[in-house]
Amino acid sequence: MTTACPLCEKTADPNQLSELVWEFPLSVAVLGEWQQYRGYCVLLLRKHGAELSELSEQDRRQFLDDMSLTAQAIERAFRPRKMNYEMLGNQVPHMHWHLIPRYPDDPDARQPIWGPVERAGADAVLADRLRGEPSLRRETIERVRRQLQELTSQRA
Amino acid sequence: MTTACPLCEKTADPNQLSELVWEFPLSVAVLGEWQQYRGYCVLLLRKHGAELSELSEQDRRQFLDDMSLTAQAIERAFRPRKMNYEMLGNQVPHMHWHLIPRYPDDPDARQPIWGPVERAGADAVLADRLRGEPSLRRETIERVRRQLQELTSQRA
Repeated sequence: MTTACPLCEKTADPNQLSELVWEFPLSVAVLGEWQQYRGYCVLLLRKHGAELSELSEQDRRQFLDDMSLTAQAIERAFRPRKMNYEMLGNQVPHMHWHLIPRYPDDPDARQPIWGPVERAGADAVLADRLRGEPSLRRETIERVRRQLQELTSQRA
Repeated sequence: MTTACPLCEKTADPNQLSELVWEFPLSVAVLGEWQQYRGYCVLLLRKHGAELSELSEQDRRQFLDDMSLTAQAIERAFRPRKMNYEMLGNQVPHMHWHLIPRYPDDPDARQPIWGPVERAGADAVLADRLRGEPSLRRETIERVRRQLQELTSQRA
């Protein structure tokens, strides 16, 4: 753990996370900021590390299993046109997957979400629209959780 | 296989690919278009499918193992500041991973590569610069291959 790492702080006590979706042994799913992409979750690794190659084979596979299962739960909850899976870490080099469902009514459906997200940085109205209403955010968490409950009980 | 799928066509006969990097049983690594990000590879699944959830557990894990190993080979060959892992498929919904090394001298190092790539669509000089020289492309393929040879022989 690097004390200056914001994702180490976040994962140190998942129960303090306001928009926690799911706790896996090795990772934590939280609601993504931009719920215009309804169901968008971020999967945070519960230990510090920048690259998959730093993990043991067992941890790497477990983390990628968690990623796959969370993406599948989002698919089952919201039936997107396509899922986007992205692990970047250019700004915060602590492994985290952006799991972003994409929908046909998105005017930028053929592009990654980062163009609109960057524009939202200079446009508060757009930012609010991309974030979505608090009630919708809460309902989204519940719907993804329900799918993860089903999927993990099948797996167990 | 969907006959209209360009990635089904590409993976049908990997030996026809001009910038083939590596053949795995389930996937094929080719050099990515934008070698300003030196070592950038794309890992194509050798069967048609849009989402990880469509694969058997065995195939999904194998594909993600191939992804991890290719990314590790790029890291070993070029020592980037960070790797970006992206599976989008918004334009071509046939699973493929963009494995993109990022370097400190990149003026957009904190952002995904898609901003510059989009600008290159309207700027031939920028596009040529992002693509890189043919001789550098060939050398890059060799360097990633050498690392994959080492890594796969360790694994075998």
